[in-house]
Formats: sequence, C-alpha cells, structure tokens
Amino acid sequence: MLRVVVNTLPAVPITPKSIDDYTDIVGADVVDNARSLAGSLEGARVLHVNATAFGGGVAELLYTNVPLMRDLGLDAEWNTIESSDEFFAITKLMHNALQGMELPLTDTMRDIYLSHNEVNAKLCEADFDFIVVHDPQPLAMLAYMPEEARSRAKWIWRCHLDLTSAYEPLWQFMLPYVKLYDAVIFTMRDYVKPGLDSVPIAAIPPSIDPLSPKNQPLDDAMVQSIIGRYNTDRRRPYMLQVSRFDPWKDPLGVIDVYRGARERVPGLQLVMLSAMASDDPEGWHYYEKTSRHADNDPDIHMLTNMEGIGNLEVNAFQSGAAVVLQKSLREGFGLVVTEALWKAKPVVASPVGGIAMQIVDGETGFLASEPQECVDRIVRVLQDQDLAHRLGAAGREYVRTRFISPRNVIDYLKLFRSLA
Amino acid sequence: MLRVVVNTLPAVPITPKSIDDYTDIVGADVVDNARSLAGSLEGARVLHVNATAFGGGVAELLYTNVPLMRDLGLDAEWNTIESSDEFFAITKLMHNALQGMELPLTDTMRDIYLSHNEVNAKLCEADFDFIVVHDPQPLAMLAYMPEEARSRAKWIWRCHLDLTSAYEPLWQFMLPYVKLYDAVIFTMRDYVKPGLDSVPIAAIPPSIDPLSPKNQPLDDAMVQSIIGRYNTDRRRPYMLQVSRFDPWKDPLGVIDVYRGARERVPGLQLVMLSAMASDDPEGWHYYEKTSRHADNDPDIHMLTNMEGIGNLEVNAFQSGAAVVLQKSLREGFGLVVTEALWKAKPVVASPVGGIAMQIVDGETGFLASEPQECVDRIVRVLQDQDLAHRLGAAGREYVRTRFISPRNVIDYLKLFRSLA
Repeated sequence: MLRVVVNTLPAVPITPKSIDDYTDIVGADVVDNARSLAGSLEGARVLHVNATAFGGGVAELLYTNVPLMRDLGLDAEWNTIESSDEFFAITKLMHNALQGMELPLTDTMRDIYLSHNEVNAKLCEADFDFIVVHDPQPLAMLAYMPEEARSRAKWIWRCHLDLTSAYEPLWQFMLPYVKLYDAVIFTMRDYVKPGLDSVPIAAIPPSIDPLSPKNQPLDDAMVQSIIGRYNTDRRRPYMLQVSRFDPWKDPLGVIDVYRGARERVPGLQLVMLSAMASDDPEGWHYYEKTSRHADNDPDIHMLTNMEGIGNLEVNAFQSGAAVVLQKSLREGFGLVVTEALWKAKPVVASPVGGIAMQIVDGETGFLASEPQECVDRIVRVLQDQDLAHRLGAAGREYVRTRFISPRNVIDYLKLFRSLA
Repeated sequence: MLRVVVNTLPAVPITPKSIDDYTDIVGADVVDNARSLAGSLEGARVLHVNATAFGGGVAELLYTNVPLMRDLGLDAEWNTIESSDEFFAITKLMHNALQGMELPLTDTMRDIYLSHNEVNAKLCEADFDFIVVHDPQPLAMLAYMPEEARSRAKWIWRCHLDLTSAYEPLWQFMLPYVKLYDAVIFTMRDYVKPGLDSVPIAAIPPSIDPLSPKNQPLDDAMVQSIIGRYNTDRRRPYMLQVSRFDPWKDPLGVIDVYRGARERVPGLQLVMLSAMASDDPEGWHYYEKTSRHADNDPDIHMLTNMEGIGNLEVNAFQSGAAVVLQKSLREGFGLVVTEALWKAKPVVASPVGGIAMQIVDGETGFLASEPQECVDRIVRVLQDQDLAHRLGAAGREYVRTRFISPRNVIDYLKLFRSLA
C-alpha cells in the first residue's frame, strides 16, 4: 500500500552544471543557439516528473539536462513520484507489454496503477509553465489534476520507449491519458502510434553527457588499470556488451555470437557488464541463466555493480573494447550504443528501435540481426584495424553532432517555445 | 603480481565545477579570498596521487577539490596508482597498524610495498610544480623518483589518518620516506608524530561538498519517500550510524547503545548504513557478526549498497534521523559526522580523532565514550526537541565556517604559496 506522509512530490537535488563547459565539444555556435533560444524563456518554470532519481537512462538524462536548463535561465525542477512495491511490479509488467509482451491487465492492476497516479497528482504542485512527464509510470497523473492546474501549465508526455510492437489492449488503456497532454515527445517519428492525431508530436532523441564520469575521455593507463583489476587478459582483445541481464538484451545470444567469433579469432574474450538490483528477482534469475550458458569458459567475464562496476568502470571497459556488441531485441534508443560510438568504438548492433538512428550500416558501425551476420561483422572489424578505426571515427562524429546533451536541451527549448 | 602495460599513472577524469556556485553557502568574501590567493598560482601544475578513483573519503575529497583548483586557474590533475590484490591486502593491514593494530611486517610485505612504489614512481610524470601524495599507499614513490624529478616539484605528503596510536615499528619503517617530502599535511596538529622536526607541517582538516548529492538539501518528501522504501516505520524516530562494518566503527557497540536507548524511548528504531565490497571478506565477516548481534529485532535495519544505498539514500537517512551516532574507536577525521552536522542533526559521537575538532561537547553535539553515557545523551536529545534543534543549528554553522570545500582549497593554496 502507498502511504504518504508529506504533501508534495519528492524533489531531486540538482548539482549545478554550465553549458559553457560543452563549448569545446559541440562548438560555440550550438551553445550560442541554446542561449538565444532560452532568451524568451528566461524564468520559465519547468518541472520534470519521472519514477526514480537513480538507475536507468531517464534519471541519467535528467541529471544533466535539468541543471543545463537552469544554467540557461529557466527555473527547472525535477520531482519523482511516490511508489510502492506493487506499483513498481505492475509498471514493470506494463513496460514489458509496451515492448510487445502479452499482458492480461486485471482490474486490480488498473486500480493500483490509477490510484497511485491519483495520489501523486494530489502531491504535484502545478504552479509551472511546462510539466514534462516521463514514461508510463506517472502518465495518468494529469487526469487527476484539478482543471485550473491542468490549464495553467503546458503538459508534455515524454515517452522513451519504442511502442511499435506495444501490446494493443494496454495501449488502448493508455491512449485516453496520452490524449490529455498538450504535446507528446517520442524518440523518433516511427514510434508514433495511430490515434494521436489531435496531439502535437515532437521527435526528440535522447543524449549522453560527454562530461560525465561515464563518457569523459580516459587515458590508456586508467583503462588498462581498471580492466586489469577485473582479471581480463590485457594482451588479448575482448568484445563487450553492457546491458541488464534480461531477455530483451539477449545475453544468451551474445554468448553464442562470442563463441562463433572466437572460433575465427583465437584468444578473443567476452565481457558482459550489468547493474543488478537486489529487489529484481527476474534480473537475478536471468543472471544465473546466463552464467550457466557461459559454462566454465574462463574468458567470459560477467561483471556487475556487486564487483564494483560503476560509471568509471563502464567507461573503461567501453574504451578498451576491441568491438562492442548490442544484440538487443527491443531498444527505446540504446544510449549504451551512443556511449560506445562516442568512444570511437566499432559497434555491431541489431537494427531495433533507436539503434538504427545511430548506426548507418557500414559507415558508423554495423547493423546485424542474424547471429551469423553478427559473427561475420565482428570478425571483420577484429581483423581489419583500418575498418575498425574508420567506423569508430565516423560513429563518434555522428554522435557529436546529434546526441550530445546541449542538442537535447535545444530541442526542449524549441518545443517549449512552440507551446508558449 | 603487478603487470603494467602502459607507461603513465592512470588519470582520473575531472568533471568541471565552479567555485562561484558555493558563494551562497560560504559567502562572497571566502570565494574572493580563494580567487585572490590563486592569483599568483595561475597555471601552476598540481598533481594529486592516491590509491583509488572511487570509494573512500579521499576520492570523495578529490572529486570536488581538483575541479575547484582548476576553476581557480591552477592546472590540477589527479592520478591513481597501479596496484594488485596483494598490494591492496598489505596496505590494508598497514592502514590498520597505523591506527594501532600490531603488525609483524615481514620482508615479503616490505618488498611488495616498495616494489609497487618503485613501479609507480617510474610511471609518474614529474613535470609538476606541486605533487600531493595521499595516505600511506603511494608514500614511498618519492624515494624512487630520479633526483631531478624530485627537485623540480614540491612534494607534499597528505596523511588522512590519526597516527597517535600507530604501531611504532611500522611508523619507524615509514619515517624515512616521510622525511623526503617538502611538507606534510596532517588533519590536526595533534596527529604530528615525533621525528618530523625537519619537515614543514601543515594542519588542514578535510571538507565536505555541500553541492554533492550526498549533502545537498533534500525536501521532506524525498526524505520520507526514500526512508519509506526501506521499510523503516516513518511514524517512529530512528537513530543512525553510517559506517563500514568493521571493528573500528564498533557496530556491535552501536546495537548495545540502541538497546539501552530503546528501553527509555519505546518505538525507537536503529538504521545502520554501509558500503560493502565483494573483494573485502573482512567486511562481510563483520556484517554477519553484526547481523547475529542484531538478532531478530525487526526495528534494526542494516542496509548496504547491495540494497541500493547510494549517496542520495545516505543523504536522506541522515536528513531524516532523530539522532546520529558515531561510536568509532578510531577516526581520521570523521567526515560522516561532518555530513550529519551539516544537516543540522544532533550528533552523539566518541571523542576520537577529528571528531573532537567538530563537536564542542554540549554545543555542537555531544561527545560520549562510555556506552551508558551514549545512551544518556541520545535519550536526552530524543526527549528534548529544543536541545536537539539548538545543537543541530550550532553544528551546521560550525561546519559551514570550517569544513566546506572552498576552505580546504584555500588551505592548499596557502600551503602552495608558502612553498613556492
């Protein structure tokens, strides 16, 4: 049960950032453009609402984008919603169903979902000019806001998921809530579902922060020091996948592809990095399943936060990889691909969701669906250093101009101005 | 064995920070003072060297102080050393011995310690004006630097430990290395050991970053949301200790004190937070010992990073505590006490190491050594809200003027100027 003892939504503390620090990366014209777009929005009150302050791509995005909006003169805040174990469990199922899994939505589930949204609506201060609601968890809040609060702010739903295969009955349940919004943001045009003709739609991809510990350049000594600490052999190449142990990321398929590639590139190692949560039994179940599939191969390294894998370590393993794989079956955008491209790595990935937006096949990386195709591409980049460098350099430049934080902020500013 | 494949020390990536963001907290005069002291040091090349980029108080200090030095115009870098499991095990024993434990230092241990320092000296670029070496792990590096590298830079050893009870044979082994330095920083004058008359000594306490996720103000809704997620009863008060499960932090004694206090304050809960590392068997052993001592009491909550306790969660539990305990037997400074005082909490702590510098007994908190004394003080603050508020407010102000990052940076600048 959800018991609330305070009458506002929890506010996430904001660590200051300056957009000027990004000038060397994105160029002065981009920073100037952001400042000029922000001019007429000076002092505008912006609220972002999402499910959690830590863990997951949305929280990572907000950690950078909210302080950058503040630095540009907007009065930006970030609140999370109150939740409970049962709400968390139900919205996790909904998340899976929005990626295509069947979900018999019972009355109880619907009640729990809606009653939590009702409580959170009561906690939400609506004294804002723009309220951006992220993902399905807080979507229905707006339906429970008093009429004057609804009309005072422009309400924007930001959906980070690829809904193209969404389980239709669930989407039909959500659709009336989506329609209440003044605008909806999808990661790409292709994600827009039918039935939303009445709502303005913006297509805005997410972004990575090149100044975060996860994406800052590391020198070779730091990379080798971290890799060595985790007992990979630094004299032999490794392929890498960074992903939760969950069926959508196909970790068993990753191991199969690795075995295929290793036959042709002797000594190749595989590193799989993941964050694990003690309250996610499904994740542990899949971790165990993956371990069994890895058998006793000492060259398969499965490492998690339990062994001290944090942002700096992910950065190091990405920076040191000979090739990065992303064998996802579904992917909202695939920020982990963006991170690898930004480190100028050759990436071989499935053409699902936003990955196809990032990888121009054969130019900024390789797209491959079938296991044998994956193996072929991996072996090719491992055997052709020139090709690997060319793909990596093109991938980095592609990311630099499209998927770096200031660009994301600019897209928000444009949307706000169009709604103001 | 230490195998190194790159010929420089690993560099930690630096996230930019601006000292101006601290003006509201420390006052414009302090920020101006920092700028003016930095004036003559513009462009000075400063290198900090320590053992790890993540985990522990030293890394936390450097994450703020290095970017602040950069913001002030110094060319500041941060390198870690290369290490190995055996080096890590030995320096951990040395750490314990420097706090008073007996340690028969064998020739093998000495060899491993020194050979690692020799390798790291080879990796260290000495093209700096000031090199600050933190704690015992990289202390002996300087002895292996070529003469011209030694004289080019001013070398400073920054010892974060309380050496007053150090195991004498170990200190005698270290002393010749300490004497090679141009200056030594201890946390307080009292920590200075005899035999250092020839070396300039600075007394500089460490600091906390009030803008970090661990110390930023949290609103009540966020505090209650996080506390509630971990199944503590939000309607009843709890006492808190944040510390590793290790004998120096006396977690068993904490439980005894809690039981004494609970007899007089029915419904009182105890929360113990800790970070655990999978490569620290001693920590797990002591965790289990503490669990057993806690018995089946459902009101004792032992929570770790394995349950998702990170900086934001520590902040929330500190902010929501009715009283904070720090029952350490040894403490270099006790930054966790600083953090609690900064949150205006009544703190009851042992008068060991730097804690006595922070708590003026009866004014900014309570000092108590004996368990019964701890119980009495805890019950007093729990029963007297006015007293609790008075202590908390005084503690926060005490910290604000003494133990906040810009002051620490100013102390470094003064030391650099005195050596230049």
